[in-house]
Amino acid sequence: MTTSSHSGSSAGVTRQYAPYVKADWGYANHWYPALLSDELEDGTVKGITIGGHDIAVRRSAGKAYAISDRCIHRGVKLSAKPMCLSEGTITCWYHGFTYGLEDGSLTTIVGNPDDSLIGNAGIRTYPAEEVNGIIYVFVGDEDYGTPPPLSSDLPARVTNDPNNTPVPHLLDEGIVIRGIHRKLVGNWRLAAENGLDPGHLLVHWDNQILVALDRALPLGVNALTDSATEEIDIPDGPKGVMNRYDRPDLYQPVLDNPKVNMKARGTVPHYFRTSLWVPGVLMVEHWPITDVVQYEFYVPIDDHHHEYWEVIATRATTDEDIAEFNFKYDNFMLPLALEGFNNSDVFAREATEEHYTRFDGWNNEMLCDMDYSIIAWRKMAARYPRGFFESPFQDED
Amino acid sequence: MTTSSHSGSSAGVTRQYAPYVKADWGYANHWYPALLSDELEDGTVKGITIGGHDIAVRRSAGKAYAISDRCIHRGVKLSAKPMCLSEGTITCWYHGFTYGLEDGSLTTIVGNPDDSLIGNAGIRTYPAEEVNGIIYVFVGDEDYGTPPPLSSDLPARVTNDPNNTPVPHLLDEGIVIRGIHRKLVGNWRLAAENGLDPGHLLVHWDNQILVALDRALPLGVNALTDSATEEIDIPDGPKGVMNRYDRPDLYQPVLDNPKVNMKARGTVPHYFRTSLWVPGVLMVEHWPITDVVQYEFYVPIDDHHHEYWEVIATRATTDEDIAEFNFKYDNFMLPLALEGFNNSDVFAREATEEHYTRFDGWNNEMLCDMDYSIIAWRKMAARYPRGFFESPFQDED
Amino acid sequence: MTTSSHSGSSAGVTRQYAPYVKADWGYANHWYPALLSDELEDGTVKGITIGGHDIAVRRSAGKAYAISDRCIHRGVKLSAKPMCLSEGTITCWYHGFTYGLEDGSLTTIVGNPDDSLIGNAGIRTYPAEEVNGIIYVFVGDEDYGTPPPLSSDLPARVTNDPNNTPVPHLLDEGIVIRGIHRKLVGNWRLAAENGLDPGHLLVHWDNQILVALDRALPLGVNALTDSATEEIDIPDGPKGVMNRYDRPDLYQPVLDNPKVNMKARGTVPHYFRTSLWVPGVLMVEHWPITDVVQYEFYVPIDDHHHEYWEVIATRATTDEDIAEFNFKYDNFMLPLALEGFNNSDVFAREATEEHYTRFDGWNNEMLCDMDYSIIAWRKMAARYPRGFFESPFQDED
Repeated sequence: MTTSSHSGSSAGVTRQYAPYVKADWGYANHWYPALLSDELEDGTVKGITIGGHDIAVRRSAGKAYAISDRCIHRGVKLSAKPMCLSEGTITCWYHGFTYGLEDGSLTTIVGNPDDSLIGNAGIRTYPAEEVNGIIYVFVGDEDYGTPPPLSSDLPARVTNDPNNTPVPHLLDEGIVIRGIHRKLVGNWRLAAENGLDPGHLLVHWDNQILVALDRALPLGVNALTDSATEEIDIPDGPKGVMNRYDRPDLYQPVLDNPKVNMKARGTVPHYFRTSLWVPGVLMVEHWPITDVVQYEFYVPIDDHHHEYWEVIATRATTDEDIAEFNFKYDNFMLPLALEGFNNSDVFAREATEEHYTRFDGWNNEMLCDMDYSIIAWRKMAARYPRGFFESPFQDED
Repeated sequence: MTTSSHSGSSAGVTRQYAPYVKADWGYANHWYPALLSDELEDGTVKGITIGGHDIAVRRSAGKAYAISDRCIHRGVKLSAKPMCLSEGTITCWYHGFTYGLEDGSLTTIVGNPDDSLIGNAGIRTYPAEEVNGIIYVFVGDEDYGTPPPLSSDLPARVTNDPNNTPVPHLLDEGIVIRGIHRKLVGNWRLAAENGLDPGHLLVHWDNQILVALDRALPLGVNALTDSATEEIDIPDGPKGVMNRYDRPDLYQPVLDNPKVNMKARGTVPHYFRTSLWVPGVLMVEHWPITDVVQYEFYVPIDDHHHEYWEVIATRATTDEDIAEFNFKYDNFMLPLALEGFNNSDVFAREATEEHYTRFDGWNNEMLCDMDYSIIAWRKMAARYPRGFFESPFQDED
Repeated sequence: MTTSSHSGSSAGVTRQYAPYVKADWGYANHWYPALLSDELEDGTVKGITIGGHDIAVRRSAGKAYAISDRCIHRGVKLSAKPMCLSEGTITCWYHGFTYGLEDGSLTTIVGNPDDSLIGNAGIRTYPAEEVNGIIYVFVGDEDYGTPPPLSSDLPARVTNDPNNTPVPHLLDEGIVIRGIHRKLVGNWRLAAENGLDPGHLLVHWDNQILVALDRALPLGVNALTDSATEEIDIPDGPKGVMNRYDRPDLYQPVLDNPKVNMKARGTVPHYFRTSLWVPGVLMVEHWPITDVVQYEFYVPIDDHHHEYWEVIATRATTDEDIAEFNFKYDNFMLPLALEGFNNSDVFAREATEEHYTRFDGWNNEMLCDMDYSIIAWRKMAARYPRGFFESPFQDED
């Protein structure tokens, strides 16, 4: 076990965002991305897990539905062996329990159409929306009531872009979205913080995309005032924090550290800005190149795994523009940014998990000055918790 | 976690078979199959585990013996590196502790023939019987006393076959038995219930053997009266429940479910009947074809694994009849029935385990009308428990 | 589960070495081997774990340093992605925290040279020594004070060799050491006891090196008096026990066991002697051949794994002698002794672990007369405990 040879504690700070420390399974009662639209062909079923909720996502007559992935009878996953016998229903492959997609009610049992359970039992459903190629699901307490609008759980629309046309919002019309997602080891908060973190540039020091484009990347970026990371709290709307890299009066790049004989590399300056939004969505404006935007979702699966979503959006309406974006996505952005560059972050997050799991890292970390934006995020995420996911596992007899 | 949107509970029913719910490691003080005879050549040792008991099965001078598979000295498994230095003994490969097979007493230590432990220590032995190609072991409390006859832990002899010669009993003379066994994920009770279950025909909907033989398989079979599943409780003999599919007055096949637009397939009727016996033995008469019988054993290994035994028996005494059966077994019954058809059951059981393990399924299931025979089985299995296996694992210091 | 059919308990004996039974994670505040010198090139870092302590071993300007392998910031392992930017420091690859190797103090952060943590935080270091090709680290309580000399944690220098020149000590000048180490399943005590154990010759019965050299190996060696295993307790120096196989008045070989029809094999007598030293170092004099010595270290990693070290030392100063030893090591001692012969011990230790882990073996073993030297070792190891490693893992929130 590591032991510090100097005193140091962040317990005082920890108390300022106690709900966040508690949110090991994630925040409940939020919209999360479930699947990319093109992963769910009509008539099919896919199983996912968000915050411990096993959910079957089913497309029927073109529309995406989300329903509990546990048959009420013997508890098997419906998605283990998808069976769709009619539009508007999903059938359990084991004993034929058939549920309506709208309300989850048990509408028939294949081998026993007169069973007394029919009409008197069911499984829960989840609100689902599909916009611009992403299927979102609202996951949380069954009695939560009407969910807030999807837009309140996405980054705010950018209006103050200093140099260019503001990057598109995920719900904008006339945009194209491409992306990937994958299950990673690591708590969702470690992933989210890694995305925003102004102090981790070192892991990208040698990434091929930066070398190829000769991008100027400082060793670090240091806040000059407390307002360098802006808190954005829109009533009934998005909550997040933004590193105002667009404001030279707020940030100073570190270009040289003679103690370790390191200098910043690259000569081509490039403007971008990072912000992180509840319940765990990163926006990187003008990344990896100007006029596109990279969004990342850190969707809690359980307390030690998250689904890492990376999507890139751009404005494109003509076939020619769309084809051009797709070509650049397939042959440049996907391999060099989403995979090449971000894989360094994946390594870092997975390497961080051990300490937080085995050594109670949330109470045994030592934050530094560079962590101002991490702390701002934690406080923001702790401000209005709608609910907390909890372990669904029950003890055996 | 699944949450019902309707009320529903089987707690009242659960109380009627409480000993069964408790039997997560299996029922103790019963005969269980240990090995097929041809898996144990003379002079060899194989290690098995039944209900948490690690047992070394050793054949010496033709006879099969069962003895604890833990050396009393440092606790290694004797079967880890079999060492048989003389008939009637088994020797631990580590320090040479040598035990008599009849009573388990420590008869010598290879490197120290005068050790004071010799004659004053030993390991337990288990009663073993070998009949018709199967070695059975009686496993349970060491002080249980004289075990009941093996026949009391096997299905009863069939006497009321309606159409054909009754199928042979496992202890009959003049029969041939072929089969396989394998370790599966899943509690033994989930496996046993799956075997009897009249409600799971859907998982066999598309099995090749049914399509090839054009067998008429209904969507379900529904009991018309409470006596459709017969309770069989023979004094000092087998205890079990039988789905009386031979009685058209008791069962009605479901051939059509218009709600999901499904109809039963196949045109060739075929008579069979299923029954399940304590401590976990299935008999399927005239399956997969008329005049043979399929037995299945669901032998508890621990609370989450069982050894799945599938054997087929037939009457055959002449070399020609035996050769004909073996040919059909190797090229039809093994690939299409024991593997092809039953692998759908294997999938179902393994898929069911997660709910029962993580979500306390025994108290969080919702049984339906089709489960009448499952409940009859649970009550029968709970009626006269001879004992319960328990986890053998002890806490570390 | 094993159950004795006879009474038997070693509880009375167990109380005589209670601190040893407690030492499941190993004894703290001792010197342990960390790496072979040639495994750590200049400028590189390797991560190891001893008694639950994750340690980064770094060579800088030729010298080996040991430092905590957990960055104080977010707890990642420094060795996960070694980053050495200047002599005398080690840098965390994630956020650039840079520590001095001498005292572990935080000397800079790559991207934030003015961070207020710099100079006010740090990680612990461990004393390290490098002698004759082995890097040793002193691991234990951070406030232990000045460590005892390395020699106190190695076998004593042999002075009473009866037939030959005494074998060399690990700290002697003019010697050559070759060896290997590997991570094994099994508590370190099971490994140490296996090394000394006079009763386990049976596992080596058929080893190729013995057959090739026609070595006379008895079935067992039995002590004639209580002093057969000598206790060696040097003030401020090594503590150990030695099987005095050099004294024919103390030991009698067992050459025949008619009960199991076994006789000792081999005709060529060979003198060797085994001794075991705190905190877990075996010395086998004149093994595998006369004039060389085999040392083994059983270094605790956690409570269920140890690092198994096997090294052979000989006197050699001329290039010709060194080349001759290396040739014999590569083509005879390594394959036939360290791997061939000792792999039988590896098998035995790993097979023993299950019983001690799952069935509380330390309180459920039945020692025999042959275990006199095991008990002597346990008492010696329990006599002056400097400290105990404990599980470093903390509960999660």
